Amino acid sequence: MGKVYLVGAGPGAPDLLTLRAARLLESADIVLHDALVHPDTLALAKRARRMDVGKRYGKVSTEQRFIIRALIEAARTHEVVVRLKGGDPMIFGRAQEEIDALHAAGIEVEVVPGVTAALAAAAALRISLTRRGVARTVAFVTPRVGRDESESEWLPAAIGADSVVLYMAAGASQAIAANLIRSGKPAATPAALVESATLAEEKREFTTLGALASAERPRAAGPVLMCVGEVFGAVEAVAAAGAERCRFG
Amino acid sequence: MGKVYLVGAGPGAPDLLTLRAARLLESADIVLHDALVHPDTLALAKRARRMDVGKRYGKVSTEQRFIIRALIEAARTHEVVVRLKGGDPMIFGRAQEEIDALHAAGIEVEVVPGVTAALAAAAALRISLTRRGVARTVAFVTPRVGRDESESEWLPAAIGADSVVLYMAAGASQAIAANLIRSGKPAATPAALVESATLAEEKREFTTLGALASAERPRAAGPVLMCVGEVFGAVEAVAAAGAERCRFG
Repeated sequence: MGKVYLVGAGPGAPDLLTLRAARLLESADIVLHDALVHPDTLALAKRARRMDVGKRYGKVSTEQRFIIRALIEAARTHEVVVRLKGGDPMIFGRAQEEIDALHAAGIEVEVVPGVTAALAAAAALRISLTRRGVARTVAFVTPRVGRDESESEWLPAAIGADSVVLYMAAGASQAIAANLIRSGKPAATPAALVESATLAEEKREFTTLGALASAERPRAAGPVLMCVGEVFGAVEAVAAAGAERCRFG
Repeated sequence: MGKVYLVGAGPGAPDLLTLRAARLLESADIVLHDALVHPDTLALAKRARRMDVGKRYGKVSTEQRFIIRALIEAARTHEVVVRLKGGDPMIFGRAQEEIDALHAAGIEVEVVPGVTAALAAAAALRISLTRRGVARTVAFVTPRVGRDESESEWLPAAIGADSVVLYMAAGASQAIAANLIRSGKPAATPAALVESATLAEEKREFTTLGALASAERPRAAGPVLMCVGEVFGAVEAVAAAGAERCRFG
């Protein structure tokens, strides 16, 4: 019986993988990976059979129960099984369903954490998510609604935290901004959008909730993180990043 | 004039560094690092002069303004300056003060994200911070109080989010738990403590807010993350991790 490693591939750029993840990929017998993992990252798995089990928003998706069946089958026939997920496995990665099913099948699981997208967005913007006297709490939320979930469940955390990063926000920034303003966030609250963080096609934009609420945006080409909070209006940071500012939408 | 790289060293284990961070350390001319960075990580900086500018809770600390002066001086006399911070630079790392001062001095800054401690704790516990139908929001907060901060500012985010990870919680778990219960979280809310995440001396414990509120804990040897939320009571995960459960305190 093999062992399954749930491994974070990091936010996009292949060199934002951890050393441990790189070593595991090199020794893997089989790799089951998400759709958005960089080809250079997959190329590290020289010895491995590779299976794309990716769920990509709006494109063909693989059912979670198929992924779980494939993982169990892989562990029965391979020694080192790597389940490679974008970002960190434990943030919006549906990892628990896979961990629980593997445990139930008697298969050993180890989790290798990765750099989650919100941290890459903060690095790209050169804005710390926490700041003395301004922000000591940070929330990661998603406005994406699955079955069995109501649409407003993300609001209490987004309203309660000083800095908020919304994952999978592409196509939803207008509704999110309007929702936050309706719930009491001032329209002047600074916001920032980061598309395709850490990749060559990365785009950044500084704005406000009011501006986002006032217009629908064209479809983005890559994943979009929406950042909201006073820290994103920091004058020095915006000025410095402004030199390479790049509107997108 | 050199360039300053604010680099995340990851949560503790040296192989949870990113490939980019490792490469930068190898080419660094000078490294200014926090106290808790692993010696094997520092050893990657073969060519570099190394300066410990670490702030360690309860031990000798270096003033932030000294660190900033040292960074500016380093950039004036070295080409590749690495400022190495535990975890991710943009989460509780006081990075903005350094970024703003460097920008004001006309020095170029790049941020290399890292694996933040909360993600390492989730990996150690084998519990996803998000879970369909249970948790779609995550908050990172710190109960540590600096100057100009009131003691309760972390509560709205901690109450609003489904899963909460409290950084720098050593010595404060009783007060935090009592505070959360007073603010409306049920005493039966599952909680977990992770000490020295990812290191050989790592310790994990599953408990509840009520149990934490009822007793003071002995001083921990390493940094402690306190995790609160329904996901930390997941029956399968607790049972699986229970095999190697290790009470500490």
